[in-house]
Amino acid sequence: MSAIMTPDELEAALRAIGAARYHDKHPFHGLLHGGQLNRDQVAAWALNRYYYQSRIPLKDAALLARLEDPALRRAWRQRIVDHDGEREGDGGIERWLKLTDSFGFDRDCVMSGRGILPATKFAVEAYVHFVAEKPLLDAIASSLTEMFAPGIIAARVPAMLSHYDFVSKETLAYFEKRLTQAPRDAHFALDYVKREARRPDQQQAVLNALTFKCDVLWAQLDALHFAYVEPGLIAPGAWRP
Amino acid sequence: MSAIMTPDELEAALRAIGAARYHDKHPFHGLLHGGQLNRDQVAAWALNRYYYQSRIPLKDAALLARLEDPALRRAWRQRIVDHDGEREGDGGIERWLKLTDSFGFDRDCVMSGRGILPATKFAVEAYVHFVAEKPLLDAIASSLTEMFAPGIIAARVPAMLSHYDFVSKETLAYFEKRLTQAPRDAHFALDYVKREARRPDQQQAVLNALTFKCDVLWAQLDALHFAYVEPGLIAPGAWRP
Repeated sequence: MSAIMTPDELEAALRAIGAARYHDKHPFHGLLHGGQLNRDQVAAWALNRYYYQSRIPLKDAALLARLEDPALRRAWRQRIVDHDGEREGDGGIERWLKLTDSFGFDRDCVMSGRGILPATKFAVEAYVHFVAEKPLLDAIASSLTEMFAPGIIAARVPAMLSHYDFVSKETLAYFEKRLTQAPRDAHFALDYVKREARRPDQQQAVLNALTFKCDVLWAQLDALHFAYVEPGLIAPGAWRP
Repeated sequence: MSAIMTPDELEAALRAIGAARYHDKHPFHGLLHGGQLNRDQVAAWALNRYYYQSRIPLKDAALLARLEDPALRRAWRQRIVDHDGEREGDGGIERWLKLTDSFGFDRDCVMSGRGILPATKFAVEAYVHFVAEKPLLDAIASSLTEMFAPGIIAARVPAMLSHYDFVSKETLAYFEKRLTQAPRDAHFALDYVKREARRPDQQQAVLNALTFKCDVLWAQLDALHFAYVEPGLIAPGAWRP
């Protein structure tokens, strides 16, 4: 059994996991930001990641359904508002659909999940199940990949705009919003786990939850890389450019 | 809405899914049977597939827990007996561990799931959740990949024995048992779905369940192929030869 960490030591251990395992270390990420993907490969990324986006409010609702404190629920429900918007045509999911629209994908098809890679689906479902089934502390800790998101997003929009003529500030609008939303969410969740993870076993569970979530993100880029970059082995039923 | 099929038309439609999507069509399968993998690559296959084997009795128990008919339960429980055995040192899981033993893997390590690919875990978990959560008909139908197993297994043992000096009849004993178990199980489940899937929507659900299960098996070989064959991108935390 490991010894108890101070809250700041716990934060440092979480940051070390991000430094080693966050998906900005994946080769597909480097290709995406470096302008080395073609239009079809970026389209496959947008299509598959839509499924991840679409499940985020469901996992947040599953978490909300287990939060007994109204103050915590008020804070957490904002995530659902951000994704679903205040009205038709608003919200992060709608903004992501503008991106898939721009590649010519039919919305009904995108929203049905047809054509995504089975590995995308399995990874995302594992995340939703994890949040619905694990202790609340683990479920909240699994959101902490957002600690590492602002850096990747801040670089993404200018990099993609400079490299790809098939994206625009409008079709990448999802990311601009996330620049302010992700730090707020990450700050809240990090405070929560630093305050609530008091025993060594709880601290280990928090670290394991973040590792698990890094695996979920990594597996999604793995699936894209292998199907659409190298060796280009597309699972039966998945979208073929 | 599609029209109703006769039971034999339903069986033909199931067989067509197997012909298109069963994992014997995956390049990794061809390499494994063709003697084109090295010892480490076969070891990675044995290690990762152990996780799948280890979850099978759990998914069968989840199904058993929802079968209200004692006769059905009697038939289905045999699957659990086959995997767990009658006594210590017996059963399919034990036979699989003899295979991982032969590659020098520590049993505690294998049984903990440490070192397996995240994509293996996510695919197998998706299967367990599917069986626990979907209607009984879909859950039973998802076992129907066993209709296609005897062919692959009958070819596997002689092919592997002829190509690889690091396997033996003893370490491949798991497959010999499956030669009689799989057809019995597949026959039972196929009779069940041909009898119970009477409406077009039920028949479609049965076909979807088999497609889903083919995806689960395919995704496992995808993960192995991409990590250990080409391009050889091993996810953080997974076993490195």
